[in-house]
Amino acid sequence: MLEKSENIKHLSEEIERLVIDNDIKKLREFEETHYPQDIAEALEKLDEKIIIIALRLFTNDTSSEIFPHLDADIQEEIINKMSSKQISELFSDLYTDDIVDILEEMPSNIVKKVLRSSTPEARAQINNILKYNDDTAGSIMSVDYTRFKVDWTVTEAIEKIRERNEESEDHNTFYVVDDLNNLKGTVELKDLVFSKGNLKLSEIMDERVLFAFTKDDQETVIDKFKKYDITTLPVINIQQKLVGIVTVDDVLDVIEEEVTEDIHKMAGISPTDDEYFKTSIWKMVRSRSIWLMFLMISATLSQIIISMFMRIYSVNQTNNGQSSANEISYIITMFLTPLLTVISGTTGNAGSQSSTMIVRALSLKEVETKDFARVLWKEFRVALITGLILISVNFVRMVVIYSIETKGNLNDPRIWYTIATLSISMYLSVIMAKVIGGTLPILAKKLKLDPAVMAAPLLTTIVDALSTAIFFSIGLIFFAQYI
Amino acid sequence: MLEKSENIKHLSEEIERLVIDNDIKKLREFEETHYPQDIAEALEKLDEKIIIIALRLFTNDTSSEIFPHLDADIQEEIINKMSSKQISELFSDLYTDDIVDILEEMPSNIVKKVLRSSTPEARAQINNILKYNDDTAGSIMSVDYTRFKVDWTVTEAIEKIRERNEESEDHNTFYVVDDLNNLKGTVELKDLVFSKGNLKLSEIMDERVLFAFTKDDQETVIDKFKKYDITTLPVINIQQKLVGIVTVDDVLDVIEEEVTEDIHKMAGISPTDDEYFKTSIWKMVRSRSIWLMFLMISATLSQIIISMFMRIYSVNQTNNGQSSANEISYIITMFLTPLLTVISGTTGNAGSQSSTMIVRALSLKEVETKDFARVLWKEFRVALITGLILISVNFVRMVVIYSIETKGNLNDPRIWYTIATLSISMYLSVIMAKVIGGTLPILAKKLKLDPAVMAAPLLTTIVDALSTAIFFSIGLIFFAQYI
Repeated sequence: MLEKSENIKHLSEEIERLVIDNDIKKLREFEETHYPQDIAEALEKLDEKIIIIALRLFTNDTSSEIFPHLDADIQEEIINKMSSKQISELFSDLYTDDIVDILEEMPSNIVKKVLRSSTPEARAQINNILKYNDDTAGSIMSVDYTRFKVDWTVTEAIEKIRERNEESEDHNTFYVVDDLNNLKGTVELKDLVFSKGNLKLSEIMDERVLFAFTKDDQETVIDKFKKYDITTLPVINIQQKLVGIVTVDDVLDVIEEEVTEDIHKMAGISPTDDEYFKTSIWKMVRSRSIWLMFLMISATLSQIIISMFMRIYSVNQTNNGQSSANEISYIITMFLTPLLTVISGTTGNAGSQSSTMIVRALSLKEVETKDFARVLWKEFRVALITGLILISVNFVRMVVIYSIETKGNLNDPRIWYTIATLSISMYLSVIMAKVIGGTLPILAKKLKLDPAVMAAPLLTTIVDALSTAIFFSIGLIFFAQYI
Repeated sequence: MLEKSENIKHLSEEIERLVIDNDIKKLREFEETHYPQDIAEALEKLDEKIIIIALRLFTNDTSSEIFPHLDADIQEEIINKMSSKQISELFSDLYTDDIVDILEEMPSNIVKKVLRSSTPEARAQINNILKYNDDTAGSIMSVDYTRFKVDWTVTEAIEKIRERNEESEDHNTFYVVDDLNNLKGTVELKDLVFSKGNLKLSEIMDERVLFAFTKDDQETVIDKFKKYDITTLPVINIQQKLVGIVTVDDVLDVIEEEVTEDIHKMAGISPTDDEYFKTSIWKMVRSRSIWLMFLMISATLSQIIISMFMRIYSVNQTNNGQSSANEISYIITMFLTPLLTVISGTTGNAGSQSSTMIVRALSLKEVETKDFARVLWKEFRVALITGLILISVNFVRMVVIYSIETKGNLNDPRIWYTIATLSISMYLSVIMAKVIGGTLPILAKKLKLDPAVMAAPLLTTIVDALSTAIFFSIGLIFFAQYI
């Protein structure tokens, strides 16, 4: 018993040999003993001509299981080179949701080619799914499910399953509808197997039906899978007719997508659907520039604040004569300015810890908008203690630095004023940053804005501005005598 | 057909009434028409005494389906108040992985009480799972699965399923082992149903067995579920004996945990397992302080760099006499210092965009460590263009600000030197930040460190130091004449 995925390179070589030798018997054996996912991975390493021949030599069943797992670029080239008939054969055994996943990555000429090669029925189904907005239940559902009528017997239902066999994506849960196609209940294969053949489905079905509407956000769908530990969820339209199912394997993919989107947003990147290396330079520039520009422009705020304080510090420069002017310049350049990135960095980090925690807790529904005051209070208390720890460590840090710089002579009172300024302003700033960081995402959600977007990037700007303002204000108190 | 989850408050009131009226008949009806998840949610809103009575009035089956979905605090109080016998009844119908999940949240006295109340067999199973390290396949597996012998017939297998009925967590996939309990294949219920009764399982089983080892990281398990679109995965020990299964609903929970951990790490928060409101203030302080301290201490680097440049700028102060000293102080305080947060903020954001993208791409395996050079080259090109856009916008921004400040008189050459300094240093810094941000996580992974930890927090420190150094270096070139 050896895990196959370890030896993709071996598999590639084996397939290549079998294809070149046209060894159908061995190929049959090969496809029965390997997973389509692994075969797809192995094929991707081969020449495109070999891939096309291999897909033709494998049984139709296997080929259509392999195809959805191939790289989009390779899929595109294969479709490009195939005849209408070949496409029709390949796609006829694919589940509709897989076809839709494939087509969504393709340029429009390829989409048209595939649709032209499909049966009118398949075309209608595909178009039907393609019309749903991205990120809705409708866009991720499959129409390959098995539907029973409520007045069928157990025996009739089992016969139906046998008939449909490979056409259904899920073989374990079945949906029971009335004559108007309204969803009435679900039946598990297990229950069919262990029930008397002449019982009506209405007698054995589970009437506690969970469902999603086609237009529901895919996050709603994810939440139901998580909460109810289900493996399929029926999808109904606005007239409450059953139109499709979502399976748990698609939900795993969707979770990944949603999480990536959230993580990117928190870093100020507009979401793109594509993988890193498949995203063009231009698309990447676009998804990153917008927020960077916005943040740079809003950094004007802290620039203005610092300028303002520089003027306040120097306001009496001309009045008090040269020596005082020199003195205050020296204080600003030698004592205060070097600390700017320390204060803004530390406060920024403290704030983004809080905002990140809350954004994630909001998306897991551990925190709701009604918890505003509770979060504020909790963050405030955490900040009180964290701040104390930070300024204690900072005190030691500062004393060490100044001891080294002055070779142990810490008599200069300006050193102590600087330490006091940084300590007090860091304490106040950390509290401010944690309280704002914790509540800003909740506020965003209340205003129906995206908490993830409001998290890190915007917060940094606000916190930068406030922390520098606090820093120089406190400085004014201690250094007033020098101005 | 109404979604039950909408009316939790109604449900609570209904349960309370039925419990107080001791209306067993209606309660039976109630439990059959509602999901245990919803009943648990409704119970949580009631008084604890009512919850305990309700759990006693519901059938054992229902109660043990409800219990795992209750809040950990409520579970604890209930166990506390129950007799050994009651606990034994409640837990005897729970799946082992649910018991383990519950016990992991409980204080040790509660764990002991539950273990004392369990049968020796159950106790051995629970202890067996509890001994596996967190985050391994062993720690998330369930031992409630159905195992067939390879030489059984289809009829024998179906009979076994009927017997075990509720004791198995998965009713659709079954595992086939030899006499030594080595995993040989899997059988789907569907295949049993549609096969002749006298066939041997060895003839119909799928021999392409996927599995995980007990000690495998749970991420490996997640990856297999994603890749192979499976709903269960068998777990084997080092002797290759089948010891448990992981089901997809547990995988959904684990994915959530792993993602939260990654997101927290990227924000410099040491991972905690608990929900936001359940994490104590002290635990939160601890999980946040460590990185904040570390980052604050490493900000010493940029502090020293700025101090150093301040000295370089002022080095000739005494030599050149008073007017030059005044001049350079003025330049530093009025032109350069206010831009410090602009340059460090923008560069920091640019860098964390890249590092966040790469950390996520690494965890999705879109990017591998061998892609170091490819990422570097891509980030470099993205940075070349993004940087150009940024400094163009910045140019306009600066001209506007200075126009307002000087009331339109832009004749002062120092204004233009400042704009040039910021533009050039921002361009270089953004390129530097994106290249470091993109490659640092890959480097971390190569060194077997956690890319998520190396991402945002540490990057900011590095980028802060470098960008201020670049800024003041470029400034030296333009303002050399004033020094």
